[in-house]
Amino acid sequence: MAKEFGVWEGEVEAALPDTADAGVYFIGRIHTPWKERKDCPKNARGSDATCTIEVDPRWAPGLKDVETCTHLVVLYWMDRAPRTLVLQVPGQYGVQRGTFSLRSPARPNPIAMSVVRLVKIEENRLSVVGLDCLDGTPLVDLKPYFASTDSVPEAEVGWHKNRGN
Amino acid sequence: MAKEFGVWEGEVEAALPDTADAGVYFIGRIHTPWKERKDCPKNARGSDATCTIEVDPRWAPGLKDVETCTHLVVLYWMDRAPRTLVLQVPGQYGVQRGTFSLRSPARPNPIAMSVVRLVKIEENRLSVVGLDCLDGTPLVDLKPYFASTDSVPEAEVGWHKNRGN
Repeated sequence: MAKEFGVWEGEVEAALPDTADAGVYFIGRIHTPWKERKDCPKNARGSDATCTIEVDPRWAPGLKDVETCTHLVVLYWMDRAPRTLVLQVPGQYGVQRGTFSLRSPARPNPIAMSVVRLVKIEENRLSVVGLDCLDGTPLVDLKPYFASTDSVPEAEVGWHKNRGN
Repeated sequence: MAKEFGVWEGEVEAALPDTADAGVYFIGRIHTPWKERKDCPKNARGSDATCTIEVDPRWAPGLKDVETCTHLVVLYWMDRAPRTLVLQVPGQYGVQRGTFSLRSPARPNPIAMSVVRLVKIEENRLSVVGLDCLDGTPLVDLKPYFASTDSVPEAEVGWHKNRGN
């Protein structure tokens, strides 16, 4: 069963700063089939479900030319995650890791990055494959994915490669 | 000469929302050789310079296990860019494009994403190759780069592929 958010044995928190340094606008919403965290795929390649990104009409003119991209970088705000954890014990691994070595939603700035395949755009709605987030997740940014700078097929995450499970 | 920030002919602005929806903490600073925007490389593969990411001591324990990663996703805040532009005319292309089809710093949430190669970590300082930002740029997040989900060698940006220059 998926572990719910919270501070578990082996996890360490930092005190949050008193004030934020900058403000984020939610520029749309992501619609997915997953209503609870336990239903979400384990990672962005864990499902072939088509999800819908709905861009706020205010920002929709910025979608011009996006239809020429095969893949996009999606940034979104994981608004249900704690921001204090610096060391955490992911449920599926059971080993203490540093927050910046994980893709866990729990991080000082809960901004997720997913690479998605663009299926189609209709007005301010994008159909995409490759998301694993909760239904209703706030959208923060969309960017074109450039293979020349963003694709590194030989990259390795040592702790993950060498794990037993 | 590089174009400075501002609204140019062919560019269109949206009105910003009255309030932000969420707050970002700057969790460190990025040190690069580039003190002015005109000196920055055109993109993240435009320079082999080694840059230094300095993580605030508050968050430094989160760097555990990061040394096992060959590549990282770096999110940073481009604090000098206007946030209103939905259609813009990048200086090097001279054609009007939608903001979300560009990697321009000018976007509703000026969060850049770069994939970097990790050279070494010494305490709270990471030496990396693959950044193109101004010296002093605020750091927002570090993540492990997983080739399985983040690398798409066949991805194409149609408008860029078909441009004349």
